Amino acid sequence: MINTICWKKDKVRIIDQSKLPLRLTYLDIDDLRLLWKAIKSLKVRGAPALGAAAALGVYLGVKDIKKNSWKGFHSRLKQVIRYIGSSRPTARNLFWGLERVYNAALINKKRSLKHIKQAILREAEHIIKEDKASCRKIGGYGQRLLRDGCSVLTICNAGALATIDYGTALGVIYSAKAKGKKIKVFACETRPLLQGARLTSWELAKNGVDVTLISDNTAASLMAEKKIGLVIAGADRISSNGDSANKIGTFNLAILAKYHNIPFYIAAPVSTFDQKIHSGRSIKIEMRPADEVRKILGNKQVAPARSNVLNPAFDVTPAGLISGIITERGLIRPVSKGNIRKIIGA
Amino acid sequence: MINTICWKKDKVRIIDQSKLPLRLTYLDIDDLRLLWKAIKSLKVRGAPALGAAAALGVYLGVKDIKKNSWKGFHSRLKQVIRYIGSSRPTARNLFWGLERVYNAALINKKRSLKHIKQAILREAEHIIKEDKASCRKIGGYGQRLLRDGCSVLTICNAGALATIDYGTALGVIYSAKAKGKKIKVFACETRPLLQGARLTSWELAKNGVDVTLISDNTAASLMAEKKIGLVIAGADRISSNGDSANKIGTFNLAILAKYHNIPFYIAAPVSTFDQKIHSGRSIKIEMRPADEVRKILGNKQVAPARSNVLNPAFDVTPAGLISGIITERGLIRPVSKGNIRKIIGA
Repeated sequence: MINTICWKKDKVRIIDQSKLPLRLTYLDIDDLRLLWKAIKSLKVRGAPALGAAAALGVYLGVKDIKKNSWKGFHSRLKQVIRYIGSSRPTARNLFWGLERVYNAALINKKRSLKHIKQAILREAEHIIKEDKASCRKIGGYGQRLLRDGCSVLTICNAGALATIDYGTALGVIYSAKAKGKKIKVFACETRPLLQGARLTSWELAKNGVDVTLISDNTAASLMAEKKIGLVIAGADRISSNGDSANKIGTFNLAILAKYHNIPFYIAAPVSTFDQKIHSGRSIKIEMRPADEVRKILGNKQVAPARSNVLNPAFDVTPAGLISGIITERGLIRPVSKGNIRKIIGA
Repeated sequence: MINTICWKKDKVRIIDQSKLPLRLTYLDIDDLRLLWKAIKSLKVRGAPALGAAAALGVYLGVKDIKKNSWKGFHSRLKQVIRYIGSSRPTARNLFWGLERVYNAALINKKRSLKHIKQAILREAEHIIKEDKASCRKIGGYGQRLLRDGCSVLTICNAGALATIDYGTALGVIYSAKAKGKKIKVFACETRPLLQGARLTSWELAKNGVDVTLISDNTAASLMAEKKIGLVIAGADRISSNGDSANKIGTFNLAILAKYHNIPFYIAAPVSTFDQKIHSGRSIKIEMRPADEVRKILGNKQVAPARSNVLNPAFDVTPAGLISGIITERGLIRPVSKGNIRKIIGA
C-alpha cells in the first residue's frame, strides 16, 4: 500500500487526490496556507487522513516561529490551530488531530521551543503510526462479518486514500481478502465529487479487489435483486448515541438497506467519536459550493449556470439504522449510548 | 410552451435535448436511421414523447415506399416498426405509438397506398394532439394534491421535454402554478445522464418555477429536514398491478419517502400502462453503456477507463410504495389491480 500522507524532507507529502484516477501524483507542501487549501479542495480528504493532515499542518505552521516565551508561542499555536480548524467543519478526526498535538505542546510547555516543536512533530507522526495499526484492527474485526463470496456495497472512499494506507470500510474488505475470502464490491460513484468513481474503484482494482461501479441511483434496485449482502461506510463524526455523519447519500443507503433487510455497518476509528455531542442533530454539516453540482469536477457544465443548488457534503444516519460500528477496539453492536461508552469511554 | 417534437415540412422536428441546457437547438430529421439514433442517444426522450417519435418515425420509414400491393407494403411496415422498437425496450409508450399507427394502417388496408400513408401520418399527429390534452388533464387532477406553499421532489425529467409540450409530473406543477399556488421544486440531478440537472432545472426555471437542483444523494436528508411535502415522478411502463418502471433512482425515492411518511405519486398517461404485464418483475430493463457512468456526458472521464460498471436505465417501484397514479382519466388511489382496471380497462 502507498502512503496517502506522510512527513518527508521537512514537508507534508500527500497524494493529490483531485488528479485521480487519471494520474497518481504527489504534492510536497511546506506552507500552511497551501495545506489549508489542499484540505478545503479535497486534494487530501477522508476523516482519518484529515486527522494526520491537521496534526502535520500544526507543525508546518509553528516550525519557523521564533519566540522566546511559551506565552508568545502558545498564542501563535492557537492561531494556527484555529486556522486549520476553519477548513472543514464536519470531520471529528481533524479536530481530534489538532487536540492531540496541542496537548503534546502543552505537556512540554516548560521545555525549550525546539523541544516543544519536536514534541508536536513526534505526536503527528505517532498519529500516523496509530492510524495504520487502527485500520488493520478495524479490518480484523470487520472481516468476521463477511462470508466468503459475499457482496459489499460502499459509498465515497473509506479506503487507503481516506486514511494513511489501508482504510476503514475498505480495510474490512482488504482483511477479508487476506483471509482468503472472495468479496465482490459495488462502489457508489458518490455525487457530487465522485470519490467512489475516482478513488474507490481505482484503489480497489489496484489492490486486486473485484469492484463494480454504479451510479448512486442504482443502489435500491441492486438490493431488490439480492445482489448486496452488506453495506459498509466510513464516518466523519459519530455522536455519543451513535448517530453517524458521513458523505451525503450514506443515510439514503441506510434506509434502503433497512427496507431490504440488509445489514448496514459503519467502520471508523475511535477518533471519529464525539462524546460531547449527544445526537446527530448537533453535528455541523459542511455546505459546499453550488458549482460542485452545476459543473462536474470544476469544468464540465451540466446545469444552467445560475441554477439554485443545495449542496450539503454530509448527512447523518440515525443510530437506529446502523447494525454495528466497527472500531479498532472491537465491534459496537447493537449501537447504543451504553455500548459506545464501554468502547470509547465517557 | 415550445414543442419537443412535431411534424414540420415533411420532417420530424425535435429539440436536441443532448445540447441542453447550454443551447436550445432543433434537429430536422428526414431519415429513419437518424431518428433511431436520436432516440437511442436520448436526443429525444421521455416516455410520452417517445410515443410520438415512434409514430412519426413509422411515417418517415414508409412514406417513400413504392409498392403496389398491401402485402408488400405491410411487410415493409412491419420491418420499420420492428426497427423502431429495437431502439429502447422499456418505455411502453413507444410501442403503444407503434401499435396505434399500425392499427391505423390496418383499418385502411383496402384503400390506396397514398391513403394508408396519410392515415399513418394523421394518427401520429393525433397522438401529438392527444398528448397535449392528456398532460393538461393530468396536471388538473394532480394539482389538487398540492397545497399552496408545498415542496415537491422530482427525478429525471417528466416535463414538457418528456412529452409534447407540458409534462406529466411537471405538468402537475405547472397546473398548480396556474391555479395561483406557490410551489417549490427540488430536482434530483439524476445520474448518470443528468436529465434533472440539464432538463428539469432548465425547463422549470424557464417557466418561472422556483427550482433547486440537488445531487440524488441529498434526497434523504432533505426529507429528514421536512423540506419535502410530496414526491412526483413520471413512468416508462406500469404493469397491471401498478408496479412502475421509471428512471433509475425512482425506486430509491419511493423507499425514502415511505420511511419519512411522505406521499409518493406517479404521473403518467394511460398509454404508459401495460395490462399484459402483471408485475414489475416482467418489465424489461434497458442496460446502457458503461461509459455513461465512467465519463460524464460522453467526454469527461471520472473513473478508471476499464472499470466494471452496471448501468441499468430504469428501476421498478412496487405498487405498494406508490400513494397514487395520476392519469388523464383521474387519480388511481389506492394503487390496485382493480382500481387500475377501472380507469384503464382490461
